[in-house]
Amino acid sequence: MFSEQCYEWGSKRSVIRELFEYGKQRAAVVGAENVYDFSLGNPTVPAPDEVGEAIRDILVTETSIQIHGYTSAQGDAAVRKAIADYLNQTYGTNFHQDNFYMTCGAAASLCIAFHALVESPEDEIIAIAPYFPEYKVFAEGSGAKFVMVKPDMENFQINIEALGEAVNEHTRAVIINSPNNPSGVVYTEETIEKLAALLNKKSSEVGHPVYLVTDEPYREIVYDGIQVPFVTKYYKDTIVCYSYSKSLSLPGERIGYILVPDEAAESRRLYLSVCGAGRKLGYVCAPSLMQQVVARCQGKVGDINAYKENRDILYDGLRKLGYECVHPDGAFYMFVKAFGGDSEAFSEKAKEFDLLLVAADGFGCPGYVRVSYCVDKAMIERSLGAFAKLAEAYR
Amino acid sequence: MFSEQCYEWGSKRSVIRELFEYGKQRAAVVGAENVYDFSLGNPTVPAPDEVGEAIRDILVTETSIQIHGYTSAQGDAAVRKAIADYLNQTYGTNFHQDNFYMTCGAAASLCIAFHALVESPEDEIIAIAPYFPEYKVFAEGSGAKFVMVKPDMENFQINIEALGEAVNEHTRAVIINSPNNPSGVVYTEETIEKLAALLNKKSSEVGHPVYLVTDEPYREIVYDGIQVPFVTKYYKDTIVCYSYSKSLSLPGERIGYILVPDEAAESRRLYLSVCGAGRKLGYVCAPSLMQQVVARCQGKVGDINAYKENRDILYDGLRKLGYECVHPDGAFYMFVKAFGGDSEAFSEKAKEFDLLLVAADGFGCPGYVRVSYCVDKAMIERSLGAFAKLAEAYR
Repeated sequence: MFSEQCYEWGSKRSVIRELFEYGKQRAAVVGAENVYDFSLGNPTVPAPDEVGEAIRDILVTETSIQIHGYTSAQGDAAVRKAIADYLNQTYGTNFHQDNFYMTCGAAASLCIAFHALVESPEDEIIAIAPYFPEYKVFAEGSGAKFVMVKPDMENFQINIEALGEAVNEHTRAVIINSPNNPSGVVYTEETIEKLAALLNKKSSEVGHPVYLVTDEPYREIVYDGIQVPFVTKYYKDTIVCYSYSKSLSLPGERIGYILVPDEAAESRRLYLSVCGAGRKLGYVCAPSLMQQVVARCQGKVGDINAYKENRDILYDGLRKLGYECVHPDGAFYMFVKAFGGDSEAFSEKAKEFDLLLVAADGFGCPGYVRVSYCVDKAMIERSLGAFAKLAEAYR
Repeated sequence: MFSEQCYEWGSKRSVIRELFEYGKQRAAVVGAENVYDFSLGNPTVPAPDEVGEAIRDILVTETSIQIHGYTSAQGDAAVRKAIADYLNQTYGTNFHQDNFYMTCGAAASLCIAFHALVESPEDEIIAIAPYFPEYKVFAEGSGAKFVMVKPDMENFQINIEALGEAVNEHTRAVIINSPNNPSGVVYTEETIEKLAALLNKKSSEVGHPVYLVTDEPYREIVYDGIQVPFVTKYYKDTIVCYSYSKSLSLPGERIGYILVPDEAAESRRLYLSVCGAGRKLGYVCAPSLMQQVVARCQGKVGDINAYKENRDILYDGLRKLGYECVHPDGAFYMFVKAFGGDSEAFSEKAKEFDLLLVAADGFGCPGYVRVSYCVDKAMIERSLGAFAKLAEAYR
């Protein structure tokens, strides 16, 4: 009687959410401090002070209509200009305000981009494992077929050969996510260059541009001076999907953007298609107050060092205990190889020690679990004993 | 190369927006005070003080994660409970928090509801003229066929016979909007009862429930003690789509809800379908700060009396000049009969006197124009001279 597909998507909890809900119930029994919940990717670092200051100042200096009134559908022009200016200063790019369409976060950005690109049920959208599971929902929701490319199991960069085999004349977009959820890896410049070369070659072969959609909510969450290549400088047919959820710790506020550079093939037509997709999906404009807040907070981030400390405690601690860990260069997730090889069984076993670790099968990467370290530092320290017991259980 | 449909929706400006943009250009030439822009439906009354107070208080008393963190997909439970309690107290209903799904405004509510309900391309969604033109975009965007039922030209209630002919086994939903944009009319209790009786009869005939989607952003914008029937009390298979854009003057903030009552057929299944549709369309949760703001502002409204004063000046003023006007009982629009019968020609002629009046053809109601009186009162007073000249031009 209803959309069967929407009923499925609404009634089946994600593996992550399932684990989180289990953790809440367990916490009620044994106490929250005795449950080591590494399941969710919710930023624990507070929003930088500039966010609250911006809100307070806006409330005092602007009228109700200026603060809360409709903005144009693509977002306030001054806000878009502030973002363009910031990116140009930071990355040496050459954007202007009309390259930007403000959105209600990264999920909205991705959905709008997919709906803008997808024309027929034969269209395909490719994601590279390990990938964020919601990409499948967004892609299928846009009417496309979702295609997963197997991971580069050595370095968690891109398996370029596998990607080359997957791209065909039906491919509308290839999604990348770097810094990566769930692996914590940052694609190197070499990887981006190889990707660009491949996509250029494939675009010629199939006779039309293969767009690259780069999902970048973790762009500023990087450690040790690692550089995150700004993808539009490497491949022209790139659509950037950004969100302030992680950098400004505003995940509930739903604020981000789609960036369609002038250099992208049929840039204006694509941009208008994005506008039409936003209209189609019921997005009238991005939240007005938050548009102004992010404009005032360009270049600001929350306390990344807190995530770094967590990363170090976790990485060093687990390695000492014999775990094989992928060293995270960005985001706030660590990929840990499952003892015994079966990540779902490993995740189940971990629960016996009240460790909540997400099996990465749903991310397209069996054999690994994702450990989110956007958590209380003290919890990581407390958890090492449980990790020790888990390791022991496999000896 | 892209979605042709999305490109169309993104590149074709609405008649309303076209007129508004013309008005801005004209204002640059003759001065804004000399352009009588009745085109847009943007609330001019500021948000009630309680909104700013709520924001300031929340910033002071809650942590960053409490304010800006993800809420559950359907919205914070305490927020939903506050809304349920308010509706129950006000309308004598019996809702609980799990009847509510918080959304990014009415457009989001409608799109999510349609995507939840629509299963196949044969499905139909019916709107009753005059109707808000975006319903067509939302309905077609969900994959359904959009069906318009001709207006009740006498009273702008519902042409029940015409509606009865339009409902068939493909009908997934009938949309109503009362208080109405663009007519300003409020459906009487008798109309709602007749509608319910018809839909009950039709549901039996076609063998499945015909859902009623009631789009209610103007519910609190009513004058003269007019009662707006709470539709769920009359027809059980009702889905309420609400927004705080107009009542709290927060159109840019994108905050509202979908209400699926327990009494609706397959209520839990429908609710989960709504959740899945929200997920499909990229709506992770409604903006978190605003969820808390509206919870604290239940029962509050902006200064409705300001709209009423405008209405009175406009209605009385135009009637004295010989215009035939539909008396508005709610919302902030007035329907005015076009001199000469051709509303598009009338709208063009009005521009000669710098009057911007939207031809209601796009709302399914040729022969009328929509005059938005959510404007500066002084502008209405100044405009009467121009209206006089326009009337003179037709004598």
